[in-house]
Amino acid sequence: MPEVVFSVDQSKSMRDQAVPGHNRWHPDIPVVAMVRPGDEFRVECREWTDAQLHNDDSANDVRDVDLTVAHMLSGPIGVEGAEPGDLLVVDILDLGPVPQQIGDAPGQGWGYTGVFAKVNGGGFLTDYFPDAYKAIWDFHGIYATSRHLPGIRYAGITHPGLFGTAPSAELLASWNQREQALIDTDPDRVPALGLPPLRDNALAGTATGDVADRIAREGARTVPARENGGNHDIKNFTRGARVFYPVHVKDAKLSGGDLHFSQGDGEITFCGAIEMGGFIDFRVDLIKGGMEKYGVTTNPIFMPGNVEPRYSEFMSFIGISVDHDTNTNYYLDATVAYRRACLNAIEYLKKWGYTGEQAYLLLGSAPIEGRISGIVDIPNACCSLYLPTEIFDFDVRPNAEGPVKKDRGQCAVTS
Amino acid sequence: MPEVVFSVDQSKSMRDQAVPGHNRWHPDIPVVAMVRPGDEFRVECREWTDAQLHNDDSANDVRDVDLTVAHMLSGPIGVEGAEPGDLLVVDILDLGPVPQQIGDAPGQGWGYTGVFAKVNGGGFLTDYFPDAYKAIWDFHGIYATSRHLPGIRYAGITHPGLFGTAPSAELLASWNQREQALIDTDPDRVPALGLPPLRDNALAGTATGDVADRIAREGARTVPARENGGNHDIKNFTRGARVFYPVHVKDAKLSGGDLHFSQGDGEITFCGAIEMGGFIDFRVDLIKGGMEKYGVTTNPIFMPGNVEPRYSEFMSFIGISVDHDTNTNYYLDATVAYRRACLNAIEYLKKWGYTGEQAYLLLGSAPIEGRISGIVDIPNACCSLYLPTEIFDFDVRPNAEGPVKKDRGQCAVTS
Amino acid sequence: MPEVVFSVDQSKSMRDQAVPGHNRWHPDIPVVAMVRPGDEFRVECREWTDAQLHNDDSANDVRDVDLTVAHMLSGPIGVEGAEPGDLLVVDILDLGPVPQQIGDAPGQGWGYTGVFAKVNGGGFLTDYFPDAYKAIWDFHGIYATSRHLPGIRYAGITHPGLFGTAPSAELLASWNQREQALIDTDPDRVPALGLPPLRDNALAGTATGDVADRIAREGARTVPARENGGNHDIKNFTRGARVFYPVHVKDAKLSGGDLHFSQGDGEITFCGAIEMGGFIDFRVDLIKGGMEKYGVTTNPIFMPGNVEPRYSEFMSFIGISVDHDTNTNYYLDATVAYRRACLNAIEYLKKWGYTGEQAYLLLGSAPIEGRISGIVDIPNACCSLYLPTEIFDFDVRPNAEGPVKKDRGQCAVTS
Amino acid sequence: MPEVVFSVDQSKSMRDQAVPGHNRWHPDIPVVAMVRPGDEFRVECREWTDAQLHNDDSANDVRDVDLTVAHMLSGPIGVEGAEPGDLLVVDILDLGPVPQQIGDAPGQGWGYTGVFAKVNGGGFLTDYFPDAYKAIWDFHGIYATSRHLPGIRYAGITHPGLFGTAPSAELLASWNQREQALIDTDPDRVPALGLPPLRDNALAGTATGDVADRIAREGARTVPARENGGNHDIKNFTRGARVFYPVHVKDAKLSGGDLHFSQGDGEITFCGAIEMGGFIDFRVDLIKGGMEKYGVTTNPIFMPGNVEPRYSEFMSFIGISVDHDTNTNYYLDATVAYRRACLNAIEYLKKWGYTGEQAYLLLGSAPIEGRISGIVDIPNACCSLYLPTEIFDFDVRPNAEGPVKKDRGQCAVTS
Repeated sequence: MPEVVFSVDQSKSMRDQAVPGHNRWHPDIPVVAMVRPGDEFRVECREWTDAQLHNDDSANDVRDVDLTVAHMLSGPIGVEGAEPGDLLVVDILDLGPVPQQIGDAPGQGWGYTGVFAKVNGGGFLTDYFPDAYKAIWDFHGIYATSRHLPGIRYAGITHPGLFGTAPSAELLASWNQREQALIDTDPDRVPALGLPPLRDNALAGTATGDVADRIAREGARTVPARENGGNHDIKNFTRGARVFYPVHVKDAKLSGGDLHFSQGDGEITFCGAIEMGGFIDFRVDLIKGGMEKYGVTTNPIFMPGNVEPRYSEFMSFIGISVDHDTNTNYYLDATVAYRRACLNAIEYLKKWGYTGEQAYLLLGSAPIEGRISGIVDIPNACCSLYLPTEIFDFDVRPNAEGPVKKDRGQCAVTS
Repeated sequence: MPEVVFSVDQSKSMRDQAVPGHNRWHPDIPVVAMVRPGDEFRVECREWTDAQLHNDDSANDVRDVDLTVAHMLSGPIGVEGAEPGDLLVVDILDLGPVPQQIGDAPGQGWGYTGVFAKVNGGGFLTDYFPDAYKAIWDFHGIYATSRHLPGIRYAGITHPGLFGTAPSAELLASWNQREQALIDTDPDRVPALGLPPLRDNALAGTATGDVADRIAREGARTVPARENGGNHDIKNFTRGARVFYPVHVKDAKLSGGDLHFSQGDGEITFCGAIEMGGFIDFRVDLIKGGMEKYGVTTNPIFMPGNVEPRYSEFMSFIGISVDHDTNTNYYLDATVAYRRACLNAIEYLKKWGYTGEQAYLLLGSAPIEGRISGIVDIPNACCSLYLPTEIFDFDVRPNAEGPVKKDRGQCAVTS
Repeated sequence: MPEVVFSVDQSKSMRDQAVPGHNRWHPDIPVVAMVRPGDEFRVECREWTDAQLHNDDSANDVRDVDLTVAHMLSGPIGVEGAEPGDLLVVDILDLGPVPQQIGDAPGQGWGYTGVFAKVNGGGFLTDYFPDAYKAIWDFHGIYATSRHLPGIRYAGITHPGLFGTAPSAELLASWNQREQALIDTDPDRVPALGLPPLRDNALAGTATGDVADRIAREGARTVPARENGGNHDIKNFTRGARVFYPVHVKDAKLSGGDLHFSQGDGEITFCGAIEMGGFIDFRVDLIKGGMEKYGVTTNPIFMPGNVEPRYSEFMSFIGISVDHDTNTNYYLDATVAYRRACLNAIEYLKKWGYTGEQAYLLLGSAPIEGRISGIVDIPNACCSLYLPTEIFDFDVRPNAEGPVKKDRGQCAVTS
Repeated sequence: MPEVVFSVDQSKSMRDQAVPGHNRWHPDIPVVAMVRPGDEFRVECREWTDAQLHNDDSANDVRDVDLTVAHMLSGPIGVEGAEPGDLLVVDILDLGPVPQQIGDAPGQGWGYTGVFAKVNGGGFLTDYFPDAYKAIWDFHGIYATSRHLPGIRYAGITHPGLFGTAPSAELLASWNQREQALIDTDPDRVPALGLPPLRDNALAGTATGDVADRIAREGARTVPARENGGNHDIKNFTRGARVFYPVHVKDAKLSGGDLHFSQGDGEITFCGAIEMGGFIDFRVDLIKGGMEKYGVTTNPIFMPGNVEPRYSEFMSFIGISVDHDTNTNYYLDATVAYRRACLNAIEYLKKWGYTGEQAYLLLGSAPIEGRISGIVDIPNACCSLYLPTEIFDFDVRPNAEGPVKKDRGQCAVTS
């Protein structure tokens, strides 16, 4: 077990830790620990909402969650010798829920998957499922099961939803500029088109006074992935993966969190994967001048781990960029196509007795693969969704007799 | 070797075969052979453009290709007892290039990958690569190599780009309506937003006279995937796959072609994968009333084959829905995000000495995986592209020294 | 399709081909075709017994088979520039049954698995199953099924049972010496401990007169694997594999045959895998002085192909080096341990309704894996056998209720 | 984290734990904790020699190890309702080194692989490597590296070497009878043919007085696998595996230990894999009368986990049942064949600069696969060994130039 350079007491808010983390991206958030190229170290993480969600059977907490506090990140960790233009090489050596603990915070033996209400966050299928829903998952070693999703059991592909380096001041400004421009195209939209900087509930790490105030005013929200990495939600950032992050500021300033026990490609539920607090063990190194050497000018590149569970059979669902309800055609729109693939999967699962909400929660959390299959066959983009059949404890494949529909209960809903 | 129910002489145009196929979707195209549930049979296929492309070192044929003849499909094969509402179960037992032949038609020992010129077809990156390009691939058993892409060798995941059942008259009308509505939003766009029915070069199978004329006038173009299956370009429709097609007309009327020796997710080159003629061996069965039983009302569902090559190491590239050139943000646009992932991969490959065009051709044809990673983290969709490192005969992974840039020639270009 | 350098008319005996092959190992068998390093070429093969087995429902042909004619090999192919001490690099580009043909010879649309009678060949479990048995397999594209083994279907991992280079005169003499020494320890044993050279039915390729006679007198039998490669029966010599054969004579003289559509590790049935004639496409190259460079002084080394079917669930059976019937302990004897693992698997399969003979035939032909698990824990060696559950069309896993025993017919037996 | 039903303080001998375990198999060892079918629980384990081996650079501890204390097992755990004839279903939910600790006992951040001296234990290649050797492995999350084996890094397939149920008195007597009969055939052999019961250093759990004395006199040694499970050393008993153990006594009495961070098939080094103490999380269930229902009368059956690292490229080595040094032929002896495959792999690795001892240690600990390839081709058994190329940080594949031989240091040796 490597040295812990950022520690979290799961019984306390991130704000009340001995060394607090942060929930905005800004170059001036002070480094909390320095490491050297070649070092291995552990970072402990708080669940992304700072544990506003509970291990119970009501989705009221999802409905009422305060999203201004998200994401609660651990860091920044400084890397000696890192300079703008370098690539920071990050190996994920191990990652898991809070070790050796059972408790009330997500990650202490359990996690959750939620769907935000349309009026407070939304999700990929928010027009079809506008309310808040939740499923609680219990961890059994490397497996998870949910009392809200009977008949399902799978091994977690643990990964961080969100890690990244600090932006430079210039990069931060360009983010704020382009996102505001997008928001300005439809400022009253629900859900919003984007999330501008917000002072409310901003946490600036160990910064105080004017610095903290500037961070709160200018700091980019942590929801989207950007040029520093950030909230990729790539489930293949799992144990054994190597990520090459662009370095935009001196010391790189690596921060992150939002650990997931498991997630489906797309994290379509938004709130989200199987969310948890926990730990992540890193090894870091540097490729000096690597951004130019390898042409890595926008997003990180990475090599996925080779320790994912091995599945050999899938039920796969196709979607095309057509809204079949209105017979409306979209032009090569992969987002629409993937949404239709998800809806098609949900219709299929309903035939076996799951509610639509349960199926939605399943697709957000289980190790499904979302593929862009055809992106040039005008006008229809084609996406496909691969659901491993082995995660079900019944035979979910089509046969001549038809599906066996069973009462499979319901997820947590609002009261 | 099962009975051949549709045969092709590769030295002749599809129009001149003893029993010709067709290049439009229409319910009235006459069945050319009947099979029964449980039957196994072989369908021979012509390359999709009817062999307009040649095994040479010029991309002029790509630039000048006549797209009104595409796709040249084999069929329709009628299935006894199939009725609207059923699911047609199709097992792909085997699929390959033209057996035991070397010759001038694609599939006779070779295939090609092309990029259309922006003014004649376009492609996923047409704003970045507006001209026509081509790479010729030689088949070596299950492997392909290209004189236009030195240093690359991989096993083909052979699959049909396009198979489907016939639409009903009502379904056909709804396609034509919705696609025309899309085209009407920008009728002069280059490339076009969609392809309406077109009498020029229509081939109506064995239909003649008024029937043939109506098919030519009304028949849907074969480019996009739709509710009958069609041009999915899903590389996982490979040997061992089982597809469940909705049945929209009596006898189902299964047709297809556009065989690929290999393809990357997205088929970003459009012209396209490694294109070839060849054969496909099927087994068919029926699930009576299966559309309602399984909730399959729009697109087919399928189970992918388990005989893909097994890769364990990938270089992966990320894209988000931002146009970095103009710092413009798009809202959860997976199409933009995947395009950026492709462009990022191309920049990386250029550092090793490939031209951008070569890299583009590689990504369209090699077994890359295109994933929708995050689709809810407003405003940025996040896609990722997985390139297996084993297809290169050099070490393509990043290291501290930087890439070894080598002259790797060039693909076929126009003169 | 590469040039055919050794062709076979499957309607004729290997003896009656335009250019006959051979069925003994000897340095003086004349080369029938020369190839160069870098060449790709096709070799056509006859089924190993020269098609003495038939597509029928009696095992009399297995009982009465004449084993002195085996194995009927194609070759030798000479490789220009090959000299003793080199490594011959052999890529398996493709391999399959007889292309485009249905007929009476194994490989023409079908194959078989047999178990020899104890008095004529024997097998791994001959003390438990002393009679002759047979199962006929029909090929369905890449899959095989058997009317003698209902409920089973799997994709073939096609491979050659036997390929190798010619021995030098010295090496040949050492083989004959050591094998005779073994035979002499129990010369009357049934089955025999080894097979010495035998003039009866020897086929010396294109050699005639005194040379042919000497080959018949001295030539090593083809049954075991030896320092030249030979009858490895390694199912991982499949498409995509690269084998490095030691070169013992000028031009290397590559010969082989005994193609298998599928085989379980160990080929425990002896007669054998799913046996067939067919074709194999090779690419060859040389590593000059490679035996010394890489320390390859006894057996070939190889790199297996990466296109095997991907299974993720197995029923596994353990055996230890104890004869439980007599409570006799053997010392770290992996042969006994693997035999017990096979017998344990058979007992399990009998509970589902297969006869012991059927189960035996299944384990010889299906893609089971045989592992040496523990080989040091005195006195018990421990072996394990992995049976993929996906090859069954019913759920073969244990559950609380117990297995569903069904009448599953019987294999072909003797009359 | 499930309830700990057997806890270990790694700073103390197993003898000095609050509740000690045992190191012999006997039906009368008292149950230390009861669980129910459906329960999940944790068992903590001591390294098998009770931590006689140290994290240093001398193999003297291996040379001088006292093997009479092995294996130090945790348990027995009683399962309510288990009766002779049942199958005990054991799911391995998780398994790893000692959590959250760095220390002096194997498993506290490190492990070791040793080779016993021929005069004290021996090993699979003891005639070729008669001395004692050791390599220390450092754990880095899921990976291990060794200062004694530079250039190597791999993910652990963690598994228990040894778990099993208690034998009945009759079964125990039959073991002692058959093993003594074997020993009697050559009682003075070095290494010994078997290990009879031995009072020295016997540990009988919580038994005292006469009971403890009888256990010490009669109890079977723990080295071999037997009808109760025991020391299988099957690396596929990894996380996600399900084992079905025969129940021979009331309450089943599950005990075990000998945890491995990684192991190669065969555990050829004997002392052994990467040895460690740690924890294992189980879920248990019962199949009443399962031994008869499923024909499981001798050894357990199991289903391996699906979370092994995924490798796609291997260097493979073949061995046949011939002693090439003396040109002696053995009859279908898989033990000899696998030994030759191991020796061939070692010769290959020596060409790259490893010493033979280093290569031997590597093959015992890395995730190599040992396959029984051909077991019927008289007289030569054929085994093959698969070494994943990805565990090396250099390109270990053959090429025309020959291997790059480098000084790669040496393992720990004796002084």
